[in-house]
Amino acid sequence: MSEKNRVLAANSEFYQAFLDRDFDRMNDIWSQREDVTVIHPGYSLLHGRDSVLTSWRQILSSVHSPDIHCCNATAYINDSVAYVVCHETLSSNTLIATNIFIMEDDSWKLIHHQAGPAPELLDETPTGMPH
Amino acid sequence: MSEKNRVLAANSEFYQAFLDRDFDRMNDIWSQREDVTVIHPGYSLLHGRDSVLTSWRQILSSVHSPDIHCCNATAYINDSVAYVVCHETLSSNTLIATNIFIMEDDSWKLIHHQAGPAPELLDETPTGMPH
Repeated sequence: MSEKNRVLAANSEFYQAFLDRDFDRMNDIWSQREDVTVIHPGYSLLHGRDSVLTSWRQILSSVHSPDIHCCNATAYINDSVAYVVCHETLSSNTLIATNIFIMEDDSWKLIHHQAGPAPELLDETPTGMPH
Repeated sequence: MSEKNRVLAANSEFYQAFLDRDFDRMNDIWSQREDVTVIHPGYSLLHGRDSVLTSWRQILSSVHSPDIHCCNATAYINDSVAYVVCHETLSSNTLIATNIFIMEDDSWKLIHHQAGPAPELLDETPTGMPH
């Protein structure tokens, strides 16, 4: 398996853990480092493994959490750090995410996730946007 | 200057180029690599130096582009890759951004930027959010 495919597999594992509401797998996909970070859509930064995993425990145990499917994932690798950009499709809207991974004990582990609003996938606007 | 401060200085340079509408400095802060990427708020992924810099040229030349100030910047370094999370304050709203940098010719250069909506800075919600 190519290194890009290994990163994409780790990214898929993150979304499958989310979809399955599987906290143990979600816990395992995140790096053991203390300075992991997450930006949930519309929220500010969470910093530190405790805060990040506590947020995931709350999300995965909530009956209001949406089913999220990942698509259009692309991986970019720079030495021992990689990031994936992908869309997250929900029943009501579409998000776009940046997921940063590091190599830890020969596995790609998540250190940062940011998701925010994106255009619907049938209505993408590839160029020329105000910030 | 510590390495984290060098990353934060590069991050500041990005926002100063934006504020000054200085395309040459904006061009210089981005890596020369062809696989740079950007996610402007509410838009989908732009991939490739031409697309990314064309978007910045349009933004910097538009009279509708807002003045953006960066605050609360924190840098995280992993070998030759770093990322910065920071707030972007505009007159009407607040964004939060992930900026990924690589070391290129002994300078930190931007390879990826994602910005999306954040709570107002006086109304942060640090824990317990639905995705």
